[in-house]
Amino acid sequence: MEQIPVLKLGDFLLVSIQVELHDELVLNLQDDLTSRIEQTRARGVLIDISALEIVDSFIGRTLGHIAAMARVLDAATVLVGMRPAVAITLVELGMSLKGIRTALDVDKGMALLRQSLDDAADQTGEPS
Amino acid sequence: MEQIPVLKLGDFLLVSIQVELHDELVLNLQDDLTSRIEQTRARGVLIDISALEIVDSFIGRTLGHIAAMARVLDAATVLVGMRPAVAITLVELGMSLKGIRTALDVDKGMALLRQSLDDAADQTGEPS
Repeated sequence: MEQIPVLKLGDFLLVSIQVELHDELVLNLQDDLTSRIEQTRARGVLIDISALEIVDSFIGRTLGHIAAMARVLDAATVLVGMRPAVAITLVELGMSLKGIRTALDVDKGMALLRQSLDDAADQTGEPS
Repeated sequence: MEQIPVLKLGDFLLVSIQVELHDELVLNLQDDLTSRIEQTRARGVLIDISALEIVDSFIGRTLGHIAAMARVLDAATVLVGMRPAVAITLVELGMSLKGIRTALDVDKGMALLRQSLDDAADQTGEPS
């Protein structure tokens, strides 16, 4: 299975990463996610990593790239479900996942995305 | 990675199956899902199988067991994201996934769960 499913949840997309990310899989995920953002006009992306016991520098960098790609397509990214041990390792490795917002679980991540959409709508004066 | 994450989405739980289901993984999923239904008082379970290219009789039976366990815990189960090729194979194998409702994607599955909760509330006269 060489594809990570991208699930549509209302205005948002959900990606649950459960397998080791290798190069080809990451490229597939980037292609798939960006085209799904375009197709569905999604405003936010939730990436769940609760299944990952290890997040190394390659995965950290990859997640940063995905968030940056989503941003230029006008979708916010929130990383959810990080295990405490992963948070400890990331900080010890000096990786702060700059530019990626995080939330404890999918529910909280979705609330964060809704909040940021509402804030953006308030600033531009558009209806949310 | 020996666990499939169970994600909470409001009143529902979402399980995205992306890896080959072997015996131990199925047992872990059953334990995990039933305890999460109890903890979160979830009223519905969405099982996404869009990543599965093959659903054999073992997986079909397992999905039936999971749906039956959820039912006795008062949660409805909807199977979402089945690939056309999988549907063809299942019917040709004579497996009709009796007792499991299906929907095309997560959004439609969630609408189906909400609808069935509303119907149940109407019948008992409780507020939905």
